[in-house]
Amino acid sequence: MSATRFTLTTLGTGAAVPATGRYPSAQVLNVGEALYLVDCGEGTQERLRQAGVNFMRIGHIFISHMHGDHYLGLMGLMSTMHLLGRQSLLKIFGPPELREVIEVQLRASGTYLRYSYHFVSLVPANGVLIHQDQRVSVEMLALKHRIPCTGFVFRERTALRPLRLDMLHLIPHFKRSAVKKGEDLLLPDGTHYPNKELTLDPPPPRSYAYCSDTAYDPALQAFIAGIDLLYHEATFTTALEARARETQHSTAAQAATLARDAQVGQLLLGHFSARYRDLRPLLDEAREVFPRTTLSNDGETYAVHQRTAV
Amino acid sequence: MSATRFTLTTLGTGAAVPATGRYPSAQVLNVGEALYLVDCGEGTQERLRQAGVNFMRIGHIFISHMHGDHYLGLMGLMSTMHLLGRQSLLKIFGPPELREVIEVQLRASGTYLRYSYHFVSLVPANGVLIHQDQRVSVEMLALKHRIPCTGFVFRERTALRPLRLDMLHLIPHFKRSAVKKGEDLLLPDGTHYPNKELTLDPPPPRSYAYCSDTAYDPALQAFIAGIDLLYHEATFTTALEARARETQHSTAAQAATLARDAQVGQLLLGHFSARYRDLRPLLDEAREVFPRTTLSNDGETYAVHQRTAV
Repeated sequence: MSATRFTLTTLGTGAAVPATGRYPSAQVLNVGEALYLVDCGEGTQERLRQAGVNFMRIGHIFISHMHGDHYLGLMGLMSTMHLLGRQSLLKIFGPPELREVIEVQLRASGTYLRYSYHFVSLVPANGVLIHQDQRVSVEMLALKHRIPCTGFVFRERTALRPLRLDMLHLIPHFKRSAVKKGEDLLLPDGTHYPNKELTLDPPPPRSYAYCSDTAYDPALQAFIAGIDLLYHEATFTTALEARARETQHSTAAQAATLARDAQVGQLLLGHFSARYRDLRPLLDEAREVFPRTTLSNDGETYAVHQRTAV
Repeated sequence: MSATRFTLTTLGTGAAVPATGRYPSAQVLNVGEALYLVDCGEGTQERLRQAGVNFMRIGHIFISHMHGDHYLGLMGLMSTMHLLGRQSLLKIFGPPELREVIEVQLRASGTYLRYSYHFVSLVPANGVLIHQDQRVSVEMLALKHRIPCTGFVFRERTALRPLRLDMLHLIPHFKRSAVKKGEDLLLPDGTHYPNKELTLDPPPPRSYAYCSDTAYDPALQAFIAGIDLLYHEATFTTALEARARETQHSTAAQAATLARDAQVGQLLLGHFSARYRDLRPLLDEAREVFPRTTLSNDGETYAVHQRTAV
């Protein structure tokens, strides 16, 4: 088990037509207390407050596509960050049209944001790296939807090497950070300790992939192979497979087929059509194909575990 | 008492910074079951559902200005109307920039609305008539805010003349509608009844004025004189009058001063700053100036009565 937090909170698990108790798409990934917001449907700022997430700490926002249920909460969130005095840089990744939508509205409202935002225009392409920081790297997925739509793969960056407790007394305090980063230890008296004698291997990096909205697309398999947690949309049951094809969405069984073929650790279903008050049929048909499937709930937090630990 | 419904439901009474339990500006005026939406902050479609308002029946939407807390819910509402199959015309009145914001987003999302919408660009000017239908006429108010901002005065159009019960037996069924509209009755045998012998005077028309957001502006007085119900923003208490001036908002006492000087029937306060958990100080200072003052609550419905009936 790694001590670093790696959790996903799904704030909205509904589809485009609002359903009572299910909100439009938005989720927060917390990696070592760095917050990444993925999609931002209407009302996301309220959902964040309800979930107890301090949204001023969100540093990066990833928007998959320009359907309203995935981005209409962004302007309100950006505006509230401004009104509450945010000063730190906000990085936004999304379709080029989103930049125009933001700028037209900032101009119309006469708003000069107190913080800077940096916009990265996305053209969906499988496996392309779009972001890297201390904690994660993020690659795109080219989802298959009615308009250009990007999925995201978050991979934990190799963590620091834990110090061996039995060797701790040998390492001076001011050297510990360097040793955790992998350096050997050279003491003033000339003694040399190779790093591997002082540290343990860090846990393997964890990973999370977001696929919403998309038709079933086996081409994604190679790019999400072995992912620890896969969130995949499951708008319909198999009974409505034709409707799924027509609207470029997936059935729960299709989501599970991709999860199985990509040998992911866990599958989390979401983006449920408002027609399903009872989600059990979606879960059942997915589990028949891929047993390690869970339904996502609004406001719930899921820990991402290594696939091997499952 | 008129039998025709004339009610206001305030869906959001908060200001720009979100406050727990208070939503951004939006309200529905119901005049004889015709629904007029005034402002549409983020989450309005959810508030409408919670208030049990069938938003597919909203025919006219009036947006005061381009600050997010007054319009960010519009795209989501328009999109949901589309997804639920609306076909009837929607008329939207708002700042010219709003049209651009709508069109940019419809284009970006690849949405071709199933219904038509007709956009009327507003340039705020006191007393100018912008709309008239069977039930109401609507005039603009030029509010005094940091960006162009329009208030709205709704006036009930003269109602049908109620038939006198004691004369009902004289009026053939197929003539009743004409007599209610004010026509005299000429029977086949040549008998002639002047309309005033058959009908009662209709109740005087009721009126409602919406003033949010605005600095205190005595110039409005002439245009809201004698209004039955005035909704006026009261973002701050007098203790923060300087802040009100700076941000071009009003204090509760200023709202009450306008209500008193314009001799309105009732004053409804709203657009409360998130800093006030307890709104009593706002109510108290307003009532000192104008006793017929009420605090608006999210989701509450207020009947508009004739001023003389107060």
